[in-house]
Amino acid sequence: MYKIDINCDMGESFGAYRMGTDEEILPFVTSANIACGFHAGDPSVMRKTVAAALAHGAAIGAHPGLPDLAGFGRRNLDITPEEAYDIVVYQVGALSGFVKAAGGTMRHVKPHGALYNMAAARRPLADAIARAVYDIDPELTVFGLSGSELVRAGEAAGLRTAHEVFADRTYQADGSLTSRREAHALITDAEKAVQQVVRMVREGVVRSVQGHDVAIQADTVCIHGDGAHALAFARSLRERLEEAGIAVKPVK
Amino acid sequence: MYKIDINCDMGESFGAYRMGTDEEILPFVTSANIACGFHAGDPSVMRKTVAAALAHGAAIGAHPGLPDLAGFGRRNLDITPEEAYDIVVYQVGALSGFVKAAGGTMRHVKPHGALYNMAAARRPLADAIARAVYDIDPELTVFGLSGSELVRAGEAAGLRTAHEVFADRTYQADGSLTSRREAHALITDAEKAVQQVVRMVREGVVRSVQGHDVAIQADTVCIHGDGAHALAFARSLRERLEEAGIAVKPVK
Amino acid sequence: MYKIDINCDMGESFGAYRMGTDEEILPFVTSANIACGFHAGDPSVMRKTVAAALAHGAAIGAHPGLPDLAGFGRRNLDITPEEAYDIVVYQVGALSGFVKAAGGTMRHVKPHGALYNMAAARRPLADAIARAVYDIDPELTVFGLSGSELVRAGEAAGLRTAHEVFADRTYQADGSLTSRREAHALITDAEKAVQQVVRMVREGVVRSVQGHDVAIQADTVCIHGDGAHALAFARSLRERLEEAGIAVKPVK
Amino acid sequence: MYKIDINCDMGESFGAYRMGTDEEILPFVTSANIACGFHAGDPSVMRKTVAAALAHGAAIGAHPGLPDLAGFGRRNLDITPEEAYDIVVYQVGALSGFVKAAGGTMRHVKPHGALYNMAAARRPLADAIARAVYDIDPELTVFGLSGSELVRAGEAAGLRTAHEVFADRTYQADGSLTSRREAHALITDAEKAVQQVVRMVREGVVRSVQGHDVAIQADTVCIHGDGAHALAFARSLRERLEEAGIAVKPVK
Repeated sequence: MYKIDINCDMGESFGAYRMGTDEEILPFVTSANIACGFHAGDPSVMRKTVAAALAHGAAIGAHPGLPDLAGFGRRNLDITPEEAYDIVVYQVGALSGFVKAAGGTMRHVKPHGALYNMAAARRPLADAIARAVYDIDPELTVFGLSGSELVRAGEAAGLRTAHEVFADRTYQADGSLTSRREAHALITDAEKAVQQVVRMVREGVVRSVQGHDVAIQADTVCIHGDGAHALAFARSLRERLEEAGIAVKPVK
Repeated sequence: MYKIDINCDMGESFGAYRMGTDEEILPFVTSANIACGFHAGDPSVMRKTVAAALAHGAAIGAHPGLPDLAGFGRRNLDITPEEAYDIVVYQVGALSGFVKAAGGTMRHVKPHGALYNMAAARRPLADAIARAVYDIDPELTVFGLSGSELVRAGEAAGLRTAHEVFADRTYQADGSLTSRREAHALITDAEKAVQQVVRMVREGVVRSVQGHDVAIQADTVCIHGDGAHALAFARSLRERLEEAGIAVKPVK
Repeated sequence: MYKIDINCDMGESFGAYRMGTDEEILPFVTSANIACGFHAGDPSVMRKTVAAALAHGAAIGAHPGLPDLAGFGRRNLDITPEEAYDIVVYQVGALSGFVKAAGGTMRHVKPHGALYNMAAARRPLADAIARAVYDIDPELTVFGLSGSELVRAGEAAGLRTAHEVFADRTYQADGSLTSRREAHALITDAEKAVQQVVRMVREGVVRSVQGHDVAIQADTVCIHGDGAHALAFARSLRERLEEAGIAVKPVK
Repeated sequence: MYKIDINCDMGESFGAYRMGTDEEILPFVTSANIACGFHAGDPSVMRKTVAAALAHGAAIGAHPGLPDLAGFGRRNLDITPEEAYDIVVYQVGALSGFVKAAGGTMRHVKPHGALYNMAAARRPLADAIARAVYDIDPELTVFGLSGSELVRAGEAAGLRTAHEVFADRTYQADGSLTSRREAHALITDAEKAVQQVVRMVREGVVRSVQGHDVAIQADTVCIHGDGAHALAFARSLRERLEEAGIAVKPVK
């Protein structure tokens, strides 16, 4: 039986600032990654987003980022593995407060932005993040870029892991994402994006920009709550996956 | 059998900035209130302070404050009860991450500075804080100013509470603290400070600045980790309490 | 010759967060109050907003707020007059850097939100703010609530001042604004809002909610860049003022 | 006539947190680099530090850093040249507010920590910083690591520049500083440290760790306000420079 999880970053509003369309995207999402106040989100937004995710039955995860609200956590910051451990424990703990207060259960952790990218490539950072997650709760699942150091670190730490793929990004011959600075990094044709995910799940491969099929593991696919066509694409992706005989449900 | 808890605020360093003498004061303390990153403290400081408190066998509590690092959480900020709920859940959750990761158990919550003072006087704020603590963990104890709205709110919420007294502050005829803006607000004579605590515990009264004995409940006494004579006073207070037949141990 | 200035708060985006419609509202505005990074705004937003205001020929002012991004500077914070002085010097100085770098001239300072409201009522705070503005540049104009302590403090400090009125707020018999917590605080009928401003300028009075005319000085009127009808109202207000023979131009 | 400037970073306290010994070190310093609130410092500290520097007759400079208070501006953050421009304009502007309010004149700008190091090596970042300084005030002097990209960028922008050297750091054969991660990066012998500076000024060379003399330009030497022997070293350095016939005075 084929299956995949659909995850989406949310809870990224802050104070008077609105971002995303959490309520609208939630019906199509099986895992909600909720920002924890460092790159985005604030305590009130976290409480409301946890409530919304619970109401829609989405699995709740923490989405910890770098302490860089001004840069939305997208700028690399040269933190030590120990600092990575500490900011992950802090943020996952903070979100777990809201999950507990709401009577829910946290399921996973997915680092955000530059922290996600750095952890995909640097093993010591990935190990520190995995250890942080394990030390808080060994039942949590770590979400990381498919085939990345973060997923390997999670496995080594004894955690369940989820290999994450992207519908709207192209892949290189080595299975890595094409950098956004390159041409052809993004797939703007919704049909192609859906087909890419279907192949990843059913055949375990992705066609690289170089033209060859590359093996890839797809446990969860990331969609976005922002942008003109986000909702339409989310709806379409979910429908098409189910039509292709792929069950859409949370990891584990 | 007479008994009292000795608590101290700690973990108030931040980044490159040092504050307090946590390691030195811990041997005299039975409850450690650890800052949670809003008025003071940062993730790395929190991890280290939790480890130090566990090593010394002190009961660990969260010390949440207002989001005002520049003002060290000492300036009143006009937050709503709902905002108070949210910042307490966030901070207590964050600290609980470190306590769990270290294999410990959190015991209590004591708001800091202006949040403590506002919660002592304003019932809706106190209720929101008590509900936040209860929602995270109903086994936690709320520390509040002796006889204050915060303690009453904690009781109403179904929490254990601890009435906090001060060794080095004078009291008014109505049992409230003399404002620091008044003369005679502070007791600088260490002997008098110790005697005030001993009477509070053994006789349940404090001599007001107006000269009459006022009933007061003393479950825990606050000492400071800063200042020229902090360590000497802590040592002396603990010894003198024990000489007076008062057991010094954590609340509960 | 009747005249009035139309001012609007802007530059309130922050990092990845968008707020307001600065470019769209600027054609109707003669004075732009630009956020300075404490309650809203960031260095990049400040640079761009200064450039936009210069391009539209709007007079540029600093819009300093409380250090409370999470609360958008709308929550009272118990700062001392000395702290008020310092945060105003800091923010006005920061904006003046961008104005200088762009070859422009700063014209005025209007405090934001809770800082504006506190300065309207508390003279020591108002004096500190006025002194900060004067010490940076005695040629600046202070914008404050019409008839408030801030305007009086500005005059006492030797500064030019501008009495600010609101088109969409009702007034009390003593000339103060009706609190937003009361019914009838807001004027939602655009025609009534315009008429209120026209009377303020031509007759120097406003009809209070109690039904009597109250004297009021109207040097500048505040409009908003947010909300469904903001642009339509701005256009209409400007046209109607000019039709009523009132010149719309910057203070001084 | 030989001469050198002695500069020191200061104003790095924040809120309730104290750092450095500004008042004690100022008598030995000819240029004070004052933190601007991003990596350290706050508006009140800035005002007081400007007053202290003026009282001691030290030349005042801005010491802008990365927006990373938790990391004290010492962690590389991947900002764009445009972001570097903006944060430098903001911080230099903010400090200039205090300098103006105090009736003084700002003389120079020296980036802090990771911003200083990144600007020493990356020309686009260095160019952006130099342009920011020039756009605010073309009379300012840029301080940068001797021989670095920042100094070259300052010259290219049409600014006066000062090549900065270190008394207590060793140099490589190419004139760069030995990384702090290497052994022998620091010179702990005060006598050797003084002699290194004297040679730099009088002979224009420094002996590298590899044992050869390398050409180096020394316009200003950095001393520290922290550490056990900071004051004694500052006094000794100043005395010994003067004994060696080297005038100690501000740049330009």
